[in-house]
Amino acid sequence: MPGEKEIISRVRRRARAGSGVVLGVGDDAAVVRINDAKDVIACCDLMVEGVHFRSERAGPAMIGHKALAVTLSDVAAMGGVARFAMVSIALPRRVSAAYVDEILQGIFDLAAACDVSIIGGDTSSSPDSLFIDTSVIGECSRGRAVTRAGAQAGDTIFVTGSLGASALGLALLEKGYRLDGVEEGSPRGQAILKHLRPHPQLALGREIGEAGLATAMIDVSDGLSTDLWHILEESSCGAVIQAEKLPIAETDELEIDPLQFALHGGEEYELIFTARPERRDEVMQLSNSLGTRVTVIGEIVTERGLRLEQDGAIEDVPPLGFEHKI
Amino acid sequence: MPGEKEIISRVRRRARAGSGVVLGVGDDAAVVRINDAKDVIACCDLMVEGVHFRSERAGPAMIGHKALAVTLSDVAAMGGVARFAMVSIALPRRVSAAYVDEILQGIFDLAAACDVSIIGGDTSSSPDSLFIDTSVIGECSRGRAVTRAGAQAGDTIFVTGSLGASALGLALLEKGYRLDGVEEGSPRGQAILKHLRPHPQLALGREIGEAGLATAMIDVSDGLSTDLWHILEESSCGAVIQAEKLPIAETDELEIDPLQFALHGGEEYELIFTARPERRDEVMQLSNSLGTRVTVIGEIVTERGLRLEQDGAIEDVPPLGFEHKI
Repeated sequence: MPGEKEIISRVRRRARAGSGVVLGVGDDAAVVRINDAKDVIACCDLMVEGVHFRSERAGPAMIGHKALAVTLSDVAAMGGVARFAMVSIALPRRVSAAYVDEILQGIFDLAAACDVSIIGGDTSSSPDSLFIDTSVIGECSRGRAVTRAGAQAGDTIFVTGSLGASALGLALLEKGYRLDGVEEGSPRGQAILKHLRPHPQLALGREIGEAGLATAMIDVSDGLSTDLWHILEESSCGAVIQAEKLPIAETDELEIDPLQFALHGGEEYELIFTARPERRDEVMQLSNSLGTRVTVIGEIVTERGLRLEQDGAIEDVPPLGFEHKI
Repeated sequence: MPGEKEIISRVRRRARAGSGVVLGVGDDAAVVRINDAKDVIACCDLMVEGVHFRSERAGPAMIGHKALAVTLSDVAAMGGVARFAMVSIALPRRVSAAYVDEILQGIFDLAAACDVSIIGGDTSSSPDSLFIDTSVIGECSRGRAVTRAGAQAGDTIFVTGSLGASALGLALLEKGYRLDGVEEGSPRGQAILKHLRPHPQLALGREIGEAGLATAMIDVSDGLSTDLWHILEESSCGAVIQAEKLPIAETDELEIDPLQFALHGGEEYELIFTARPERRDEVMQLSNSLGTRVTVIGEIVTERGLRLEQDGAIEDVPPLGFEHKI
């Protein structure tokens, strides 16, 4: 494990002072400037070795990437623009300087790709496991953050990308498959990649927030059933979704039920959002202009609960995903 | 260990929505409002069981208190006002719900005392050790953050409170002394308390920042020698401090050298700051009005390095404290 002074100097070297950074890494705290007429969005996500990731399944750059990606996804889900990030990392003694460098590389590469400035953090040794906590500060126009609480009966329910691949990727990893043993671009390779290296839907989230398109929004961290359930609970309403409309991720696996993976699989980091039906065309235009797939999967209704319509029958869907966010 | 949903509902129940909180705990992210003409201050500190604390030495409320206190101290050291905090916590399975409650109580009590709103966080299980990462968002008038880089030759060097008690407290804890086995209010009791339950100098830090009194400021987390050294490095200057002026914490221990503890002992969370000599009276008036002890300990000089004047002799002081902040 490299010394803390060494890590600090590595981080300092790489931390670009992006726009809005008055004072970056290296003082007691960072100082940033948020434009007038903006609200500040803040969130953090903790990733623990042995709980959220295993170093034998993912390289260090992917671990770093994912640690930041999941927190950026929360800002996307508020309709905000991610601006600044801090990284606290506890390193077991067995970890080499090169390994730490690759974790940082994964974090810095994603930050650069998303125009996010790394402004600080903390580092410590760890008696056993690797811990990474990332905090992100973003912004949105005042009063325009998209919460989970605004969905109304009649709203159309949208989801970005496809669902189920990340859970499939995890299942494949648990079976012993590794990224370097599967064909690149194959459904298996794509599933494992989606699990290990998720891409937050920052551009779409931001545009939805700026245009005021959504009545409620959340990211799929715990699974469609659980995350949509959060919207329904906070908005005091229900939903009916259509099984045949769900954008189920492509798979060749015969022993799994892709619908169940799409309904309950977590860590997709896609966005679920609701919008008034008359704004559907605007949503689709945005989807086209950004090249981000958006699918209508159902409708918000007055009657509480989440129901799935399939082959003419309707059944209740319990929230079967994970629950772990404060 | 209580379930994550249970922890979330505990946090939600206790999180007061203070001023500036548009959206607190419970959504993908928090939304807060920072006044126009303010800069945003952001920092985080990681505390790891077995590295920064031991559960056999400190009760859970003290562990929670300290986890937040050390991060608040960083905002004080920027001359800022601490406003909002997030807490990420990884809990080993052996931890009971009552234990978690007490950790949270320690955090919430300090937050309430400092007018800081807890706006979010994350929780996870941990394979072994307890981890707490706290992030704090504060504010200061635009361009008025007090960095480590502004000290100039001729500046007077001040320090708050007294120095050496926290390191002494740690030494006593390592010898087997515990808070409940020493007399309350005794030098030993005070030393252990200062180590386990430090109080960040938020009021003085904020007032210094608002009045533009200091040319540079830092908090004593790694020890006077190391932290003053940071100011000297960032400000490209040196310092001479007087041994007989140092506010050395009271002690009855015969086998220690209190001066060495005061010079190099970390985790004091006092503030070291420099100011132009003509502002000394203003600093002392502020000290009186807040009832916070402030002592002049020396002067900034052109010649690089840190020197100690004692009994007419001058010797170099190397930075012997810890270095661990990004």
